[in-house]
Amino acid sequence: MSTEQSTAEPMVAETEQRKPLRRPSRSATVQEPRRTAPALETEEGQPDFAVLEDALLGRWKDLRLDARRRMLDPELHYRDDLTLAERRARVTSQLQALLASGAPRLPYPPEYGGSNDAGGNLAAFEEVVTADPSLQIKAGVQWGLFAAAILHLGTATQHERFLADAIELRTLGAFAMTETGHGSDVASIATTATYDPETQEFVIHTPFRAAWKDYIGNAAIDGRAAVVFAQLETLGERHGVHAFYVPIRDDEGRFLPGIGGEDDGAKAGLNGVDNGRLHFTAVRVPRTNLLNRYGDVAPDGTYSSPIASPGRRFFTMLGTLVQGRVSLAGAAIASAKVALQIAVRYADERRQFAGAGGEETVLLDYPRHQRRLLPRVATTYAAAFTQDELLADFHSVFSGEHDTDEARQDLETFAAAVKAEATWHALDTFQECREACGGAGFLAENRFGQLKSDLDIYATFEGDNTVLLQLVGKRLLGDFGKRFKGLSAARMAGIMARQVGGTVVAAAGLTAFAQRVADLRAGASHSLRDADVQEALLTSRVELAVADLGGRLRNVSRLAPEESAELFARNQHELIETARAYARLRQWQAFTRGVERIEDVPTRRLLEQVRDVFALDLLEKDLAWYLMRGLLSAQRARSVTETLDQLLAGLRPHAVGLVGAFGYQQGHLRAPIASGAERRRQDEARAARHAR
Amino acid sequence: MSTEQSTAEPMVAETEQRKPLRRPSRSATVQEPRRTAPALETEEGQPDFAVLEDALLGRWKDLRLDARRRMLDPELHYRDDLTLAERRARVTSQLQALLASGAPRLPYPPEYGGSNDAGGNLAAFEEVVTADPSLQIKAGVQWGLFAAAILHLGTATQHERFLADAIELRTLGAFAMTETGHGSDVASIATTATYDPETQEFVIHTPFRAAWKDYIGNAAIDGRAAVVFAQLETLGERHGVHAFYVPIRDDEGRFLPGIGGEDDGAKAGLNGVDNGRLHFTAVRVPRTNLLNRYGDVAPDGTYSSPIASPGRRFFTMLGTLVQGRVSLAGAAIASAKVALQIAVRYADERRQFAGAGGEETVLLDYPRHQRRLLPRVATTYAAAFTQDELLADFHSVFSGEHDTDEARQDLETFAAAVKAEATWHALDTFQECREACGGAGFLAENRFGQLKSDLDIYATFEGDNTVLLQLVGKRLLGDFGKRFKGLSAARMAGIMARQVGGTVVAAAGLTAFAQRVADLRAGASHSLRDADVQEALLTSRVELAVADLGGRLRNVSRLAPEESAELFARNQHELIETARAYARLRQWQAFTRGVERIEDVPTRRLLEQVRDVFALDLLEKDLAWYLMRGLLSAQRARSVTETLDQLLAGLRPHAVGLVGAFGYQQGHLRAPIASGAERRRQDEARAARHAR
Repeated sequence: MSTEQSTAEPMVAETEQRKPLRRPSRSATVQEPRRTAPALETEEGQPDFAVLEDALLGRWKDLRLDARRRMLDPELHYRDDLTLAERRARVTSQLQALLASGAPRLPYPPEYGGSNDAGGNLAAFEEVVTADPSLQIKAGVQWGLFAAAILHLGTATQHERFLADAIELRTLGAFAMTETGHGSDVASIATTATYDPETQEFVIHTPFRAAWKDYIGNAAIDGRAAVVFAQLETLGERHGVHAFYVPIRDDEGRFLPGIGGEDDGAKAGLNGVDNGRLHFTAVRVPRTNLLNRYGDVAPDGTYSSPIASPGRRFFTMLGTLVQGRVSLAGAAIASAKVALQIAVRYADERRQFAGAGGEETVLLDYPRHQRRLLPRVATTYAAAFTQDELLADFHSVFSGEHDTDEARQDLETFAAAVKAEATWHALDTFQECREACGGAGFLAENRFGQLKSDLDIYATFEGDNTVLLQLVGKRLLGDFGKRFKGLSAARMAGIMARQVGGTVVAAAGLTAFAQRVADLRAGASHSLRDADVQEALLTSRVELAVADLGGRLRNVSRLAPEESAELFARNQHELIETARAYARLRQWQAFTRGVERIEDVPTRRLLEQVRDVFALDLLEKDLAWYLMRGLLSAQRARSVTETLDQLLAGLRPHAVGLVGAFGYQQGHLRAPIASGAERRRQDEARAARHAR
Repeated sequence: MSTEQSTAEPMVAETEQRKPLRRPSRSATVQEPRRTAPALETEEGQPDFAVLEDALLGRWKDLRLDARRRMLDPELHYRDDLTLAERRARVTSQLQALLASGAPRLPYPPEYGGSNDAGGNLAAFEEVVTADPSLQIKAGVQWGLFAAAILHLGTATQHERFLADAIELRTLGAFAMTETGHGSDVASIATTATYDPETQEFVIHTPFRAAWKDYIGNAAIDGRAAVVFAQLETLGERHGVHAFYVPIRDDEGRFLPGIGGEDDGAKAGLNGVDNGRLHFTAVRVPRTNLLNRYGDVAPDGTYSSPIASPGRRFFTMLGTLVQGRVSLAGAAIASAKVALQIAVRYADERRQFAGAGGEETVLLDYPRHQRRLLPRVATTYAAAFTQDELLADFHSVFSGEHDTDEARQDLETFAAAVKAEATWHALDTFQECREACGGAGFLAENRFGQLKSDLDIYATFEGDNTVLLQLVGKRLLGDFGKRFKGLSAARMAGIMARQVGGTVVAAAGLTAFAQRVADLRAGASHSLRDADVQEALLTSRVELAVADLGGRLRNVSRLAPEESAELFARNQHELIETARAYARLRQWQAFTRGVERIEDVPTRRLLEQVRDVFALDLLEKDLAWYLMRGLLSAQRARSVTETLDQLLAGLRPHAVGLVGAFGYQQGHLRAPIASGAERRRQDEARAARHAR
């Protein structure tokens, strides 16, 4: 902390000091984890990794294990020796094997062979990535987007007409939303669907090149129909984006009249999926092909909708996309587990450079190597526990158990945050694992190249991470705004004039936060391994940043549009960083709840250490922020790195067990360097050296 | 700065305060850049990007331009529609086209068609990556490793026997150094070459599986001979690693007796190169096949060498590898330029989400997007100016102009630092560019996927970056050690007891540094755009960290080997981070010299801004370090981000010009999104909207 700030006074009025901690919404801070007392028992026994594996499998353990077992089938595995055409054909044919298992039917109603098991379906679906990410995405296009759009956006008649064929793969379909000109900004798509009362048809039309549908899975070859998103126009009036069921190819695979397209060709990854472009020239479909659950047009052209607000209607229709985000996050986490299981196993066997005593040192005994891999193992644990909570929230909404507007909004915020963190974490993990395995990591047989390439797009599809995080940030700001709504300007000015750590704080509702900061300062001698200290720091990171942004953007609505847009843009970077801090806080909380559920003491103790690595790694990454705000002194900041290093050394002996608890078998890893071959080579070489 | 540290006294004795600034070695701090006075002239005229392009082309401008022109040939370009076998065959055949240009002969003596132009050769060679990284590496294997080893490790007789065939592609060859069991630790390879005086032959032998040569370019298919590195043994004594010329295949491509191998198969990238494994079972080669410049065996088995010390001999032989590191750094920088030219052009045309006035906002007008791309443009400028200095140093040594032991050591330190930074920078840049271009960035046609995959291995081959940086760190520590050599223990203890920013400083030679810290504090009001302030901060980052490490490792030589190894390992992470800070300081210095060479005032002013972005980006990344050491106050630390944001906004209008100055044409970029297609689409879409 700087000298000029360390003397700053607490920034809220005394009368507010004792108010209880208030939190704005479930999504922003969720239920606080139960805490155990600091460890008092003597350490007895070894951690039980089977207990950890069980904890990681989560709520849908059986479905997950069943999916993993199915993914051991070599017929489903990615192969690197195929041409583009062969790759695509192979993945298309693999869809039948998935269907034969019955798993894709899970989320559908009983009359379509399912059990409305939204959460269980995604848990199983996430595991498909271990066979081949292309297969996961191809399945996601067919069942998670195309058929799911019919289910969620259509009504019973349309279910009857289209759904069974889609689920049973009799109609392969595309989800034609994205256009060349508009990706994440779906509201701006330019394809039109104009109602013609004469013939009671919609005319689907592409007005210019930028409005071609693009990057659409199943569009290049396999798709026979598409759910096409277009601006609905009737009686001369526009009603926003709606979805239409549009046949696009005949049985021989030829485009129907008025429909054209292009193959997107080779991609940086996911080459088992036939992405392509589609365009429509005055293509006519019956009025009843509008998927009309949230908006309908009567034969005479009258528009009606159960949702009055066009904005809310739009977000409700797009709400079905959340399923994709949830499952991508889960798949990214599963892949990170696979990568780390491979890299840690290799690092535990590979030796390089003679160490003490002349023996070569095992890679994972190098503190630098521990730093490369173990914090990523810890983050993967955090992500896995978070994903299980996200799945539960998703299931609660999509099964109808708790389907309210607020629950949906919370789910979307949570999913956006988790998807962004999980997918970036996976990419970062693959890269670090690849480099940590050196030349061996570059061979196709050891998988990292394929994982990197195939999952690369996960960071920007189903919502660009950068865009998703802005949505999260805006939600945090919105909650903040609600907190000081109704406050007089004079009172607000008084509060804003006070400072914490040099940052203007602008909220009456920040009492709790002020208390937290005071506690932090008082508790500066508490261990950084204390869960309360960790949560206070991570929470302050979010709340102070939100308050700071809230203060700066407070007047945004009173500005002229241009000034408002500019003010917002100037704070965009910090908004995104704040959203990431929020996502990480949620991960920490989920992880901590995961720790608390473990009953076996040595196992819980170990998992707590992993959680501490996660927390200290976060603090270290954000150290400058804490230092600048005076929340950590220079002295204490240095102890972050020291404590982290100690924790990593302590975890080292358990590293292989920790990744083993991810639960994947050789048939999932399929990497020779994780097969024990390295240890055999090392043993042979050492025996030879000793024999000389 | 924290309160407990801000009162710390300068940590050197007063008598030393006035000594002139002393620096340990050329490699550690190099000649200080000349400074212009702060801008006084009124800003007149626009920057001239042709001047920048010229500056970036550097010393070997003509050779570089010639190479770029040649790389426009579609016959040399990477294609994504080939099978593994076709890819390899295509690249093999492309070698002939390179040879036809004459460029590969440049570094060889006139009698082999060259002009001993070591630096010019690499400048031209770096550009080959723009056609296809596989071609660059295949050419590097043949001319930069196989033929270069014959040139540098062999003597005239061997040149006569082997060199012309290697250069003229009559013998494709492998450079068989790395083994499955040992990558960066070459000293530990296990292949043996035992001299048999009876037959005057060496017996090359692979003792166990881990000693197979692995990841060897040209080994899977094309190689007819190999330069094999093995432990030389004669008369029962070992003399360390030496290189042998070993024929491996007959004219029909069949392995010769005693030789076996495997294909490394598909890789994560560079699939135009046929990497493979080789093993030797008592393979006999004539005594004269030992490349005997630095070590020879007489017919009777007597070993002799012009270099007495085995350690020095080893490093001299491995010194030829520096050429690979220099050229990989250059190729990585060229590729980063290509990626940024594509991504910035697209970001300047692509619009997404309505902004002020209803028009959609151009991506690069978003401050977050500026943050994603422009600091990487600045880093690429820094890397390019640094590479030109590295090439000059390389040329000076390898042309024989200034080939001393010290110059070689400096070159190796510099090359190691530059290679690590440049290759990581390139990978980071590709990833950010890919994501910044969204779905379009994922299409193979837009290149990022290929660049990411092909250059991935650059981070770990020709020396793993992590290992290289440790070499740099150790060199910095060695220089530090020399500075306080001869100091009495009592005096040292006195110095070590003093503290700067909480860090124990342990050096008498740190006078200059202490002065610098005092200056920094005094000059806290100076602008962060002041070059002296930037250099002082970046230099302090290195020197304080080295002093800190030096203090902690000071007694390492007196410890038992095990304790010493452990102490070293505990500081490994910081050693590497310090080496990175050193590399970045060198980049900043080279960049600043580059700025000073520009005579045109508006152009120099612009380049200075780019340099400032580079500097402030470095400071922001390392902010916690500066805060913890009290070198930046919290107030000043916050101004780092503010100043950086302002600079980025100021550079925005010049972004396209800045990447245009990288100088690549459409035939190098070969990415539809950088062709203007996006602008045409946007214009058409906007015209359509306005017409409605």
